[in-house]
Amino acid sequence: MPSISEKGTHMPASPIRKLVPYAEDAKKRGTHVIHLNIGQPDIKTPKLALDAVRNHNIEVLAYSMTEGSETYRKKLADYYAKNDINVSSSDIIVTTGGSEALSFVMGTIMDADDEIIIPEPFYANYNGFATALGVRVVPIVSTIENNFALPPIADFEKLISPKTKAILICNPGNPTGYLYSKEEIKQLAELVKKHDIFLVADEVYREFAYDGRKHYSILQEPGLEQHAIIVDSVSKRYSMCGARIGCLVSKNKNVVGTALKFAQARLSPPTFAQIASEAALETPQEYFDDVIEEYVERRNILVSELQKLEGVKVAVPQGAFYCIVELPVSNSDDFAQWLLEKFEMDGKTVMVAPAAGFYATEGLGKNQIRIAYVLEREQLVTAVKLLGIALKTYKA
Amino acid sequence: MPSISEKGTHMPASPIRKLVPYAEDAKKRGTHVIHLNIGQPDIKTPKLALDAVRNHNIEVLAYSMTEGSETYRKKLADYYAKNDINVSSSDIIVTTGGSEALSFVMGTIMDADDEIIIPEPFYANYNGFATALGVRVVPIVSTIENNFALPPIADFEKLISPKTKAILICNPGNPTGYLYSKEEIKQLAELVKKHDIFLVADEVYREFAYDGRKHYSILQEPGLEQHAIIVDSVSKRYSMCGARIGCLVSKNKNVVGTALKFAQARLSPPTFAQIASEAALETPQEYFDDVIEEYVERRNILVSELQKLEGVKVAVPQGAFYCIVELPVSNSDDFAQWLLEKFEMDGKTVMVAPAAGFYATEGLGKNQIRIAYVLEREQLVTAVKLLGIALKTYKA
Repeated sequence: MPSISEKGTHMPASPIRKLVPYAEDAKKRGTHVIHLNIGQPDIKTPKLALDAVRNHNIEVLAYSMTEGSETYRKKLADYYAKNDINVSSSDIIVTTGGSEALSFVMGTIMDADDEIIIPEPFYANYNGFATALGVRVVPIVSTIENNFALPPIADFEKLISPKTKAILICNPGNPTGYLYSKEEIKQLAELVKKHDIFLVADEVYREFAYDGRKHYSILQEPGLEQHAIIVDSVSKRYSMCGARIGCLVSKNKNVVGTALKFAQARLSPPTFAQIASEAALETPQEYFDDVIEEYVERRNILVSELQKLEGVKVAVPQGAFYCIVELPVSNSDDFAQWLLEKFEMDGKTVMVAPAAGFYATEGLGKNQIRIAYVLEREQLVTAVKLLGIALKTYKA
Repeated sequence: MPSISEKGTHMPASPIRKLVPYAEDAKKRGTHVIHLNIGQPDIKTPKLALDAVRNHNIEVLAYSMTEGSETYRKKLADYYAKNDINVSSSDIIVTTGGSEALSFVMGTIMDADDEIIIPEPFYANYNGFATALGVRVVPIVSTIENNFALPPIADFEKLISPKTKAILICNPGNPTGYLYSKEEIKQLAELVKKHDIFLVADEVYREFAYDGRKHYSILQEPGLEQHAIIVDSVSKRYSMCGARIGCLVSKNKNVVGTALKFAQARLSPPTFAQIASEAALETPQEYFDDVIEEYVERRNILVSELQKLEGVKVAVPQGAFYCIVELPVSNSDDFAQWLLEKFEMDGKTVMVAPAAGFYATEGLGKNQIRIAYVLEREQLVTAVKLLGIALKTYKA
């Protein structure tokens, strides 16, 4: 039988994937599984976006422009302007999700064995894209004790080698919920300019900044134009993960021109999803106000309930809708599986994402889990109660 | 300024891209440009597919399954069964276009510097995916004199090295229009089994087989189950290029399991497009009968008109909707640009795809162009007339 590639063998499976059969078995036994493991919001997609697709008058569903439709990119530029990010439509390439944007960025700036420094814990799929392209993720540890703030710049500097092409941040962070301050972004900006490498920011959670904090984009930083690349997506912003529309944004013409060649190979982003995404830009501010209020209340209740549990430590998220929780267990992979396989209370159990998959350093995150607070408050309270009981039973 | 990757520098631009500004200038001058250069059919998308999207009742546009929705994959398996291809839904991964399917296949079976043998001329974007992934395309020449039939198996065998992981064919072929016979597929099957490499077939034009010929899929070939991987797409089948839905199909569990890890990194294929694609499977046979009758008539008129031109040679396509045409010019890149920049007759000119971009061997295809016959007959006749006049003017 012909053999699979080395990289295929090493491609990391999703951190949650191996739990899925256990969740299915639990459901088959009649157990209700509360999903704290996925970043699929329960928030309704803005009706105007869904209606735009309902009202389409397409007769031939043709390729769109490779870089995304012109009207959509023009309106996107307006959206960025409203967010104090000064870009034009020609600085934007519309992609199939933020995923494709990141993949194009890696291809554009990195060759095989080149390195990209990423604070860990980080979005697990960064590993997947890196493996697929044969580039190396160099992790730098951020800690729950510091709420996952930016590691010291001196620590970054120690990791920079001739192979280093970029630093990648997710802001606000999945899975940490940490929102980098303007000061932290400025420090990173100085560093990448000094070493003439790129700063790539995954800003898909831009709107989700809490407690009066304001998101500071890398493209708001003066003088960083040639070094900054934003990866963006409509998935979480408008609760339309299934659209699969994102974009990459850069003022660096060489970056955009090169990324466009990668984009040409796959022809165009999906047409219906672009129609929905263009319409979604008209979503009124109240939608976001309501959504953010909801997430803040969910976060508050989740964090305060978690803090009641003995031996549990939680980083208080300032953005996005995830948090990393430290548990009094030695192996959260085991614990997560046990929750699905062996535990139930009143016919219910909980599914969580073991955090080790969000770290590149072997051995880190083994006593942590990631929780996505994309469920109603009542369910969150129930879920944490179940977790508390489960932890006691598990230890015993 | 930080530098772009080597691979980004070497990414081939689309063979047509550099002509686009000239086409735009021509249009600005008021010249009507007849596009023979693109594979965007003018055929209407089946109404039931467009209606399914119009009638969607989505409230939260959520991620679909990574491998594609279960209902869609089940119906896809039925579609393949009707085409005498015996696969189950678990042999299928739904992708964002055939493009993504090919990219997953290359990642699944090839590491950096591995080789894939492809008869040339071939679909130009194969080069793009190979460059993006750092793998090598090894071309094997097929010729217009043979109507672009399969090159002798002995010639393939000479090219097989320890780095060779697969042979890739497009059947029926873009840009050749050649439909491989059952005999040719059997020869390839023997060869890949002998050397234990994969046979990958891009079968996106499966339905477009003319003159009573029947498409023979690599997955119809007994005993090839572990070596065969199909790349497929709804784009041309239902004239829905803008959907961006394709799939990869293999009975080799290792291939599908590994490709699924690549798919997990990008989460899921687009939801609306899956709805359209699932509905499109109900398209009645008459739709295809009509479409194929139309393409056959277009081909007949195109070929007979081209054969009237002095010094012009044309391969008669048996499938798909492209043909390669040899012109009495030494550089078809120049000629194509000249058509847009300098030529016009009755306010009209023609845009063609220079064929050199469809060859990997430097210097080949320089006197050839690709024509896509996706326009109405009348327009094709006009276009060929213009070509004839242009050729005379160009030479003079």
